[in-house]
Formats: sequence, C-alpha cells, structure tokens
Amino acid sequence: VKVTTDRLEQQVRFLVEIDKSKQILRQTLLVDASRQENDAEHSWHLAVMAILLSEYAGDAGLDLLRVVKMALIHDVVEIDAGDTFVYDAVGNADRREREERAAERIFSILPADLALEMRALWEEFEAQESAEARFATALDRFQPVLQNYHAGGGGWRRHSITSDRILARNEQIAAGAPALWEYARNLIQDAVRQGFIAEAPPERL
Amino acid sequence: VKVTTDRLEQQVRFLVEIDKSKQILRQTLLVDASRQENDAEHSWHLAVMAILLSEYAGDAGLDLLRVVKMALIHDVVEIDAGDTFVYDAVGNADRREREERAAERIFSILPADLALEMRALWEEFEAQESAEARFATALDRFQPVLQNYHAGGGGWRRHSITSDRILARNEQIAAGAPALWEYARNLIQDAVRQGFIAEAPPERL
Repeated sequence: VKVTTDRLEQQVRFLVEIDKSKQILRQTLLVDASRQENDAEHSWHLAVMAILLSEYAGDAGLDLLRVVKMALIHDVVEIDAGDTFVYDAVGNADRREREERAAERIFSILPADLALEMRALWEEFEAQESAEARFATALDRFQPVLQNYHAGGGGWRRHSITSDRILARNEQIAAGAPALWEYARNLIQDAVRQGFIAEAPPERL
Repeated sequence: VKVTTDRLEQQVRFLVEIDKSKQILRQTLLVDASRQENDAEHSWHLAVMAILLSEYAGDAGLDLLRVVKMALIHDVVEIDAGDTFVYDAVGNADRREREERAAERIFSILPADLALEMRALWEEFEAQESAEARFATALDRFQPVLQNYHAGGGGWRRHSITSDRILARNEQIAAGAPALWEYARNLIQDAVRQGFIAEAPPERL
C-alpha cells in the first residue's frame, strides 16, 4: 500500500491495534443482562456520560475534552493486561505493573507527540490528582453501578458481591461527583431491598 | 428508588436507553473478521479517531469537542431505526424519515436543554454544512474502510460490493479530510489488487 505519510501510517496502525478493545470483556453485564460488555462499549458509554453529566463534576470549570479523551483511552492498556475485576484482590496486586508494560507497548505505536499525549492522559487518569481524572473515575465507577443495577444485579449478582464491598469500592465516586455518589448509593441500597444482592455477612458489619 | 433530582433521573434514563446501541449490528466486521461490530463500538472508534486525526481536518480551527460529541451520539437513532447499510438503496430511501422519528423519541428522554443540544448536534451531522460535521462524516466513512480492508474485505466482501461503488460512496471523505481520502483510496485499490473485492463489472466502467 502506498501511504500518504509515515506519520499517518503510525496513527492508522494504532487505530487498527485498538480494535482489540472490542474483544476485552468486562464483568459488567449489558442492561438486558444478555452478555458481558466489552471495553470499547464501556469507554463509549463513559464518554457520553462525561458530556451529559458534566454539571455534576465536583470541581467547576473542568476541561471536558480532557475528561472525554481519558474516558476514551483509559482502558486500551487492557488489550495486553486484560480486564481486572475490581473485586479481585489477587488480580489487582500486579495490575499496575501489567498495565504499565501495556501502556509502554501500545501508546508507542503512535507518532512520538501523540504517544506522549495519550500516555500522559492515561497516567493522569491513574494518578487521580486532577479534577478531570477524578470526574472520569467517578464515571468509570458510576457506569457499572447503573448497568448492574438495571440488569437485576448483573456482574455483582453473578459473582456474589455483597453491598458493603460495592459501597466501599464505589465511594470514590464522591471525590469526583458528589451528587452521582448519592444517586449510586441509593441504587446499591435498593439492589439489596429488591434481593438482587445480599448485604454484608453479619461478621463484616 | 429515591432520586436526587428529576433532572438526574432523566439523564440516567437516557443513558440506560442508549445501552441498546451495543446491540445494533453494523455490516462492518471487526479487524479479525470474527463478527460484525455494533454502534457503540463504532462510535467509540470514531471518537478516538477524531482525537488522533484532527490534524487532517480540511478546515483549520475546528471545535474538536463538537466533533467528538457528534461521533459519540450520531448513531443512537439506530436504536429505533436500525442500521441501514450504506450500499442498500431501498433501505436508504426512507432512512431519513425513520431516523427523524427515532431522534424525536430518544433525545426527548433527556431534560429539555440537553435534548435540544443533542438533537441539534445530530441535525448538524446530518446536514453536512459545518466543518465539524464534514470531518465527523469523513471519519464515519474512513473507519469502515480501515476495518473492512484489515479484515480482508470484511463487509464489502460478504456483500460482494465492487470497488467502483466503494470509491463512489467514500469520496465524501475528501470534503472533510483530503489526506484521509487519499489514504482510503489507496486501501480500496489495494483491496482489489489483493483479491478481497472485485473491480466494477466492465459495463459499469
């Protein structure tokens, strides 16, 4: 193939590589509970949420385009590292290390300036120090709560996760979007009332 | 469920509704040719392309966030209207009408201000009059070219679409991103050379 420029060829190679995100399955089910969703679908949903829910960001005046960029690329490292279920303590022990290696390989496919920009966005998301990263992470937690709730318990139920662990895990939403945390907490409590999931076993209360 | 506000409840209802985009199949295959891709995956891929390929937009100084928003929501009307294959003349005859009805129902789930904004973005995309809409459409054509090419012909091959039709259909890329059209044309011609697709039947040349 005659290519227009080497630069465009590198950009295309990255875009072809990240097609694999469409086959990285997460533990969250679709709303109709028919199947697990994949990283590309999840990232699309997050980006739409960023656009429609930006008014709930805890910090005013955040850069929405940066939030959307983070939402779109935060999971491409899972092409190599795989999805790590948030309630999997063993998997999470070396998650960071596996994802660092993946970031190194995958973003390097891009021309140097874009590789740097995308890598920096991913690091920013992971570090949770900017308003944009905190809001993007709030959405990254809020989306599975919505989806598992509407799927009648979804991935929570399938893996018998109790509400205390779900509440503890998702409290991070409060740092990026307080109103969404209030909403999410209500859904989690309602999931217990409806019998989708169990409360904590007594010894853990 | 106790809701924080009616406004947030409407936003959530829309976000839950558009989960159905994950089940609207397109005629484009994934790069590994294992299956058709869906609207959510396609929209995610377009939005990432918008971010990484904005330097090729024909008009300088375009509003990238607006391009990304269009990329993310342009296909939600297909939840009701279904995906219409670009080479399907019959399906395209009443596409606009079916999609207008869908836009009416789906965007109306949102609070009025957001419903208006999203509807306007969709209309802008369809009208092809702004630089942002032309670039978003260029990507909407470029993505299936990339994907079908890398899938060894993909949806083109499956439906026996000849290269003259593919070239005619995708020439629209030139209006939004001239360099991407040059690149796409090379891929289409190479797809013929490699035997993935046929050239036009002689009587149509």
